[in-house]
Amino acid sequence: MIPEFARICKRGAGDILSDNCEPLSDTPQLTNSAGWVTITEHTPSQQSRRRKLEDTIRMGHGAGGRMMADLIQEVFLRHLDNPLLRQLADSTVLALAGNGRIAISTDSFVVRPLFFPGGDIGSLAVHGTVNDLAMRGARPLWLTAAFILEEGLPVEDLRRVVRSMAEAARRAGVAVVAGDTKVVERGHGDGVYINTTGVGVVPDGVDVGPQRIRPGDVLLISGTVGDHGIAVLSEREGLGFETELVSDSAPLNGLVEALLTAAPHTHCLRDPTRGGVAAALNELAVAAGVGVELDEAAVPVRPAVAAACEMLGFDPLTVANEGKLLAFVPPEEAEVALEALRAHPLGQNAARIGQATAEHPGLVLARTGIGGRRVVDMPLGELLPRIC
Amino acid sequence: MIPEFARICKRGAGDILSDNCEPLSDTPQLTNSAGWVTITEHTPSQQSRRRKLEDTIRMGHGAGGRMMADLIQEVFLRHLDNPLLRQLADSTVLALAGNGRIAISTDSFVVRPLFFPGGDIGSLAVHGTVNDLAMRGARPLWLTAAFILEEGLPVEDLRRVVRSMAEAARRAGVAVVAGDTKVVERGHGDGVYINTTGVGVVPDGVDVGPQRIRPGDVLLISGTVGDHGIAVLSEREGLGFETELVSDSAPLNGLVEALLTAAPHTHCLRDPTRGGVAAALNELAVAAGVGVELDEAAVPVRPAVAAACEMLGFDPLTVANEGKLLAFVPPEEAEVALEALRAHPLGQNAARIGQATAEHPGLVLARTGIGGRRVVDMPLGELLPRIC
Repeated sequence: MIPEFARICKRGAGDILSDNCEPLSDTPQLTNSAGWVTITEHTPSQQSRRRKLEDTIRMGHGAGGRMMADLIQEVFLRHLDNPLLRQLADSTVLALAGNGRIAISTDSFVVRPLFFPGGDIGSLAVHGTVNDLAMRGARPLWLTAAFILEEGLPVEDLRRVVRSMAEAARRAGVAVVAGDTKVVERGHGDGVYINTTGVGVVPDGVDVGPQRIRPGDVLLISGTVGDHGIAVLSEREGLGFETELVSDSAPLNGLVEALLTAAPHTHCLRDPTRGGVAAALNELAVAAGVGVELDEAAVPVRPAVAAACEMLGFDPLTVANEGKLLAFVPPEEAEVALEALRAHPLGQNAARIGQATAEHPGLVLARTGIGGRRVVDMPLGELLPRIC
Repeated sequence: MIPEFARICKRGAGDILSDNCEPLSDTPQLTNSAGWVTITEHTPSQQSRRRKLEDTIRMGHGAGGRMMADLIQEVFLRHLDNPLLRQLADSTVLALAGNGRIAISTDSFVVRPLFFPGGDIGSLAVHGTVNDLAMRGARPLWLTAAFILEEGLPVEDLRRVVRSMAEAARRAGVAVVAGDTKVVERGHGDGVYINTTGVGVVPDGVDVGPQRIRPGDVLLISGTVGDHGIAVLSEREGLGFETELVSDSAPLNGLVEALLTAAPHTHCLRDPTRGGVAAALNELAVAAGVGVELDEAAVPVRPAVAAACEMLGFDPLTVANEGKLLAFVPPEEAEVALEALRAHPLGQNAARIGQATAEHPGLVLARTGIGGRRVVDMPLGELLPRIC
């Protein structure tokens, strides 16, 4: 299989099947005991050393894939590095003097269009940050909301966004406690950009994070993949698919509470947003130093999303979700965890989709429908800009 | 004097002297015991009821004046309202279960140009949020940093911004603990926008805020006013004043610690950023339900800034600062407070510039150089867009 893997290239996830790309000839390749190919030293910093950062910012630098990882490593971490930032998790857990721990997470939202089936930038801005906190097992309590408005924005659009934000905050049980408003000239924004930063409290005893994943852990997903990215893209490009495609944008803190109550030894949670399941699993595999085996046929995908992806040439594993979570749980709690997810309105389509393994650390390998295997690579970046 | 005050109009601070404006004919006006004119019910919400919010966003909605106050009241507070948000202070103080209190503050930075004499958007983004936390007496500890990058931005510019941010964070003693990167298409941003959200710990016993201001409190300022706004404007418009104008952008947490050590009963702190001293004092007068008497001649202004303001027709009291604070202290601590400020490198030009009074609540009145009095009104908004 080695010649096959030598074709891993710079074009992103699923690119093992694509033509017209150059192999990363300097990628170290080893054959491990099972005959699989392992890309060693597959860490963001070492990836970066292999690729020169470009001179100007391109859309792909914000799309959640390798280009963004490079930018983070080469520019942001290089100068701002500290042990807390280096967690590079959905949110950062901070220990307060005394015994408490808080989690903090920040996210800016630049989704286009502002309104899409199943949501809008306001509710998305609440869900995105609530979910990042929930992925560390934190109970989200407070959000800040900062708006960059473009001159000429209809105030009625802003009202609609803010109303939606308020409704989403109520539903998620969080309060918006601080805000900021800036206005930029026409042609220097796009209606509304929103930053939300969230603070939550991490209950005593809760400790979920990439470093806790162990070989043998079962990988669960809480529902169908790709709904958000395809819904936004469809609305933006006016694709007019006959079946209605709706974003899954939703607050996951309730689902996480249910999961952690049923399966308190859950090791790691991650919401697969930009870059989809492919980016999330690659990041976790690297951070945890484990391999991930994915049973591709078990990943739930709505028929309409699958059809749209096929038509557009997208891999559903690389498309963004805004109301789904991945969970690594020890095998003995896998069944109760799955039941707990399925018993919750936001987890009805939950499924067992793979496991962590000591083999091929840092690499995600999918068993394909027809019995083969393929590397599920980190998307490069330019697939779906501005979907969150 | 009533006819004079009847000319208060919709054009912003200093507008009592301006022509070509319509009186707010529905402004309730009373003469108080001292013969001064008091505008009663001068609260943001009641102001708003008097003015219909416009249909589209204009630059002035982000400039820190009345237009922004209206927008906050009519759109953001209307839907997101809660007791914490309603503090409308520089930062929000949150009580944790247990005994601790944290302060949180958010700010987006859209300054143009990105680099200006005395600073850049990176250091500004650190100072702005550090200072908002310090104004509640909090010890700033952690920042999040979220970037909205415009396609085509030279990566070298971004590096320069991030390096400056890192240096500013070191100087201020805070760590950047979480980040986010989004990229928008060319023509939908302006190089870099940065949101920083800060979390600090409020030491036990510290309680500074607008509600603590009492009539008789002495008003101090830590140095010269208008430096930041004029420096940015001068750079942006290529005004080429002969004297170099430099922003005062600086972290004030050290200065606040020195002040609170010397004058632990300090009642209120505020950094007069967008809208300058005029906006800050008007907000505090309304929030505290006191009047403010300002000794205009005592307000320190660099000659170069004064000259630039005169040439451009600006009132230095309405121009932004990014390294200055206003303090209301009880009279018995005024002298030690002033000494503590002056002993600090960032407070060498500190001065006593006025006091709080039970007269004319909600109104800021300045004693002018020539012995008269004038209302220092809230700037309307369009004076200096995008200076922070």
